[in-house]
Amino acid sequence: MSEKTRVAILGASGYTGAELVRLLALHPHVRITALTADRRAGKEFADVFPHLGGLDLPTLTAIDEVNWDVVDFVFCALPHGTTQEVIAGLPERIKVCDLSADFRLKDTALYEQVYGAPHKAPDLQASVAYGLTEMYREQVRAARIVANPGCYPTGIQLALMPLLKAGLIEAEGIIADAKSGVTGAGRGPKEGTLYAEVTEGIHPYGVGTHRHGPEIDQGLTDAAGQPVVSTFTPHLMPMARGILATIYVQTAKGATADDLRAHLSETFSAEPFVRVLKEGQVPATRHVRGSNYVLLNAFPDRVPGRCILTAVEDNLVKGASGQAVQNMNVMLGFDETTGLMQQPMFP
Amino acid sequence: MSEKTRVAILGASGYTGAELVRLLALHPHVRITALTADRRAGKEFADVFPHLGGLDLPTLTAIDEVNWDVVDFVFCALPHGTTQEVIAGLPERIKVCDLSADFRLKDTALYEQVYGAPHKAPDLQASVAYGLTEMYREQVRAARIVANPGCYPTGIQLALMPLLKAGLIEAEGIIADAKSGVTGAGRGPKEGTLYAEVTEGIHPYGVGTHRHGPEIDQGLTDAAGQPVVSTFTPHLMPMARGILATIYVQTAKGATADDLRAHLSETFSAEPFVRVLKEGQVPATRHVRGSNYVLLNAFPDRVPGRCILTAVEDNLVKGASGQAVQNMNVMLGFDETTGLMQQPMFP
Amino acid sequence: MSEKTRVAILGASGYTGAELVRLLALHPHVRITALTADRRAGKEFADVFPHLGGLDLPTLTAIDEVNWDVVDFVFCALPHGTTQEVIAGLPERIKVCDLSADFRLKDTALYEQVYGAPHKAPDLQASVAYGLTEMYREQVRAARIVANPGCYPTGIQLALMPLLKAGLIEAEGIIADAKSGVTGAGRGPKEGTLYAEVTEGIHPYGVGTHRHGPEIDQGLTDAAGQPVVSTFTPHLMPMARGILATIYVQTAKGATADDLRAHLSETFSAEPFVRVLKEGQVPATRHVRGSNYVLLNAFPDRVPGRCILTAVEDNLVKGASGQAVQNMNVMLGFDETTGLMQQPMFP
Amino acid sequence: MSEKTRVAILGASGYTGAELVRLLALHPHVRITALTADRRAGKEFADVFPHLGGLDLPTLTAIDEVNWDVVDFVFCALPHGTTQEVIAGLPERIKVCDLSADFRLKDTALYEQVYGAPHKAPDLQASVAYGLTEMYREQVRAARIVANPGCYPTGIQLALMPLLKAGLIEAEGIIADAKSGVTGAGRGPKEGTLYAEVTEGIHPYGVGTHRHGPEIDQGLTDAAGQPVVSTFTPHLMPMARGILATIYVQTAKGATADDLRAHLSETFSAEPFVRVLKEGQVPATRHVRGSNYVLLNAFPDRVPGRCILTAVEDNLVKGASGQAVQNMNVMLGFDETTGLMQQPMFP
Repeated sequence: MSEKTRVAILGASGYTGAELVRLLALHPHVRITALTADRRAGKEFADVFPHLGGLDLPTLTAIDEVNWDVVDFVFCALPHGTTQEVIAGLPERIKVCDLSADFRLKDTALYEQVYGAPHKAPDLQASVAYGLTEMYREQVRAARIVANPGCYPTGIQLALMPLLKAGLIEAEGIIADAKSGVTGAGRGPKEGTLYAEVTEGIHPYGVGTHRHGPEIDQGLTDAAGQPVVSTFTPHLMPMARGILATIYVQTAKGATADDLRAHLSETFSAEPFVRVLKEGQVPATRHVRGSNYVLLNAFPDRVPGRCILTAVEDNLVKGASGQAVQNMNVMLGFDETTGLMQQPMFP
Repeated sequence: MSEKTRVAILGASGYTGAELVRLLALHPHVRITALTADRRAGKEFADVFPHLGGLDLPTLTAIDEVNWDVVDFVFCALPHGTTQEVIAGLPERIKVCDLSADFRLKDTALYEQVYGAPHKAPDLQASVAYGLTEMYREQVRAARIVANPGCYPTGIQLALMPLLKAGLIEAEGIIADAKSGVTGAGRGPKEGTLYAEVTEGIHPYGVGTHRHGPEIDQGLTDAAGQPVVSTFTPHLMPMARGILATIYVQTAKGATADDLRAHLSETFSAEPFVRVLKEGQVPATRHVRGSNYVLLNAFPDRVPGRCILTAVEDNLVKGASGQAVQNMNVMLGFDETTGLMQQPMFP
Repeated sequence: MSEKTRVAILGASGYTGAELVRLLALHPHVRITALTADRRAGKEFADVFPHLGGLDLPTLTAIDEVNWDVVDFVFCALPHGTTQEVIAGLPERIKVCDLSADFRLKDTALYEQVYGAPHKAPDLQASVAYGLTEMYREQVRAARIVANPGCYPTGIQLALMPLLKAGLIEAEGIIADAKSGVTGAGRGPKEGTLYAEVTEGIHPYGVGTHRHGPEIDQGLTDAAGQPVVSTFTPHLMPMARGILATIYVQTAKGATADDLRAHLSETFSAEPFVRVLKEGQVPATRHVRGSNYVLLNAFPDRVPGRCILTAVEDNLVKGASGQAVQNMNVMLGFDETTGLMQQPMFP
Repeated sequence: MSEKTRVAILGASGYTGAELVRLLALHPHVRITALTADRRAGKEFADVFPHLGGLDLPTLTAIDEVNWDVVDFVFCALPHGTTQEVIAGLPERIKVCDLSADFRLKDTALYEQVYGAPHKAPDLQASVAYGLTEMYREQVRAARIVANPGCYPTGIQLALMPLLKAGLIEAEGIIADAKSGVTGAGRGPKEGTLYAEVTEGIHPYGVGTHRHGPEIDQGLTDAAGQPVVSTFTPHLMPMARGILATIYVQTAKGATADDLRAHLSETFSAEPFVRVLKEGQVPATRHVRGSNYVLLNAFPDRVPGRCILTAVEDNLVKGASGQAVQNMNVMLGFDETTGLMQQPMFP
């Protein structure tokens, strides 16, 4: 490991870009050789994110100005819709972890329907691995391009996929009610994410129509071995980072909450980033803030035959940049936890 | 209306007590003649709640020291479990609106099971009206004692009861996922409600076991005309006041979200405090903050045959003190909106 | 008072516009006949501010479309720099309270220096009253146009002007360190006021250069009878509304904090909206939220000869829309507190 | 470094205890062998702080149960007043960093006056180093016991001491207006630090009387070579962690803000944790959150002869546990930055 892997972050001026820089600052095997942000090209990264002013980083450039000869690995944090062409144009020797939604849906026809535009790199799509690391580790290891999962699908799929695979819950009637921090909406100024509009309140959005619904169903369908259509309602709340998913399921085979918890515990027992809590312990988003952990638990419902699952994650870490680093570690053969052992920051 | 009704607030040192004082300050037909708080007896109200220091109010006393001769109406905001005996001991000519849970459940056996202690005034219970004003207005008008509903049950029942009565939704499979501000937990110091423990995070609590579950079911059962057991999960989030309930239902008779919204609109068309929003409008807790309004809407789900209902309220106003004043207005023959037309405070 | 005064709000789509509507909804002597917002013309007010959807209000129009025949009084909440011409063009019979900075500085040369553009209505300026109601009530009563004070100058001047007039503090060495909620920055989307950028942090801004500095000095100079140049540092903090000013002064004539407090108490003893707290009571912004109150107090410092004054207000009420209504009440001969007796909302 | 240093944390159930554990989790040269919390003895640390449930840690014990044979270094995070006796009773070979106020004031008579009780280990006091690392590094290196500075004094002294030493500012008329997060008040439940009491507001406290005043003056006096009495006003605001100090000074020798900034830059040029920003750059608490950095800057004031200094820190890191680890590193001969290079977490 004498030579460090040279990393470029495309679209580095957003929150996921900043979070990649924060995490990679403690990664011993990589160094950042390019940071792009077309509209801020020429600026120092610390002018855009002063909290990282203590690091020695390259100046922001336009994506056209990147010298790909000094790049071995690319994190692509560009907006949805712009990424397929960019990645298609990269030198083949460069491995890529893409944080956009552009390669997440395997079915390009579904992609077009959900995102409203034809897929621009359908040939690449077939070879892309879906980077929900704990579920698709071998595909990630073998892939040149990994599509990093959406923030909501990460926790929800980790809670449900093992239970569907084991037939412990019904494939019908799954409801995920998710509560998210505001960084999921990005750093672009919008009235709806102003402090005064968000503080001390909560509201749902994209009710019945959010684009992460089909992505969630893709994983659940894969796990269940039959088509799954789930209910998914995201909410925006006063919290910079974090996602809590409260998931309502019908159990199968007479399974109880204890059975579900036990199966999740066993499934994830060797996983460094997924912890299944003890009976009665309530997952809270603040217990994972700033870290790559996902916490899961299962609770019995008042209604016989139903259980309530909970999953928490930091949307910018396990839900984005942390899982991206985790995937890079797998793709490049590093220990999977490298650079990711920063503990949650509470309070 | 030459003589003002003389009002006592028992247990005035909590948040609901303060909120009663705030609202009654603009009520032209009442004046506050007694404020009790046993542990703070002898203090000025403004020492306990400095924000109301501009008002002319009686000094706090112990409940034993109240001169009932100068009291016509009592708001009882004492802790659960202590209220039944207090109210049983009041002079019969005094009307009462009780904000505790002590008289909410009509079935005293269920009360004992849920609250862990035998009911201490079962004879009174039979004559108590459940003060969900819009649903039980005539009972409220006729009652001497009104049990003010719990904060969660208020919005959830208002959204569901008309639909169950009309047979537009199934009585089975109802799931209410509720997100609450912190004032619902009261002003008593606890580690779990410290600022540093609550800010920037969310977690569920009382999963499958919260005491408002049976209260919700009581109303739903009454509306459906058959026993209803619903799923109810409350969450604690960084918000002083406000409740959002996101409610998942199965529709009946092929009803659509539009049908549900139309029926709710018609049901509440003459109600001053319940507003059914237009198609696609998202209720947000910040749109009712400080006011007695409840906002409702219905959305189609991705899953055929399901709909998503939303209800927002201010837990301290329509979910507690505001509805209590509304009930008092009905009980005393005042215009129902008197003192309650303060508009929501946003931002 | 059989006929209600017809009021127009120009620039109604900002936070101060919404706050004017909220307050006027409880004002018995006025009705709103025009609401303008050029970029949102044609929309319903409730589409822009859903929290006020319970009110019956005119549709938003462009300012050019207002029928001035049905307007008796104008609140002008337009951006700084655009207001002078608009007000100069209004029919003379219409009285005006202007919430912008355009008419606050009496010296038009100073205006040009501070705001970077020549004054466009210097003839009008001479007749404008500065609407710090408690200090300039008679001028307000006599004026056709009132310049509503800036949010920071309101509390700071109320704390200092009586003490300077009485010679109880030195005119030199005055330092005001102010902490403000975010609504002071308006509703226009900017990166710096996004939730994720503001929550859980604080920073100063405009250090040594904020435009409210000269406005503060104008009042202090008037009160002291000699030129005053004060130090003023505003800070942006995670709070939708509220301003706290912590003010450091040198006392004169051997005056103590008790002397200062006593003089402020006496000065404001008959004022409905200014309360001087008791010795040791700490003013907190939450104690005035949503109300038109200002709370003041004086504390002894560790350093002999110095005192610390504190002033709190709601920047959208006494610091903007509330004081504007207060000024309207004075200008139109209504009781000064009409529509303004809503008590602070805490928590 | 084959053998790790064995560390005990006394009083581990508070926020500073948790923060020590979080930071030491990434420290390669130490391992935690004892964690005490008298009232929680027998519990797992993760029961008290679930966010650190991913670590392998000793069970909490009472302090009496610690086996000192397996302890080389002690972090003492006990309440003020209880620490002097505890530390006096430790084996002499154990080095100690004390996070309480018990050993911060060199003058034991002043200690008694400020803290209201006689000093219980005056013999030890003489040998204690004051652990403001950048100012007293050599004393820290040589000491067995280091008194970790108070949160407020850390940033304020770092900003002022170099300027006083250089004679660039006057020793008179120094005013520090500080804004702090709530964790400074500890984890013990109190009404004043409940979420609903703190959110969306700000107030000063301990005006003119806060105990950190004399501690600040101790450092300033040392730097100035003459007695300094400064003005210090802390404020409590809705922020879990962070301190901003806005400091008002009179310059000496005709010095300008540029001169002050240049001198601070030069003074701290080799320091890993103190960064002096460029002209005009505004320090914000969010830019240091979770990290051991202090950011400083100097601004010209409107008033000739005055300047405004700003300092930000994370009160739990550089203001407590981070500086404690930094001091441990110096005391034990580790690289000073070991375990402390986690970058700030924003947003």
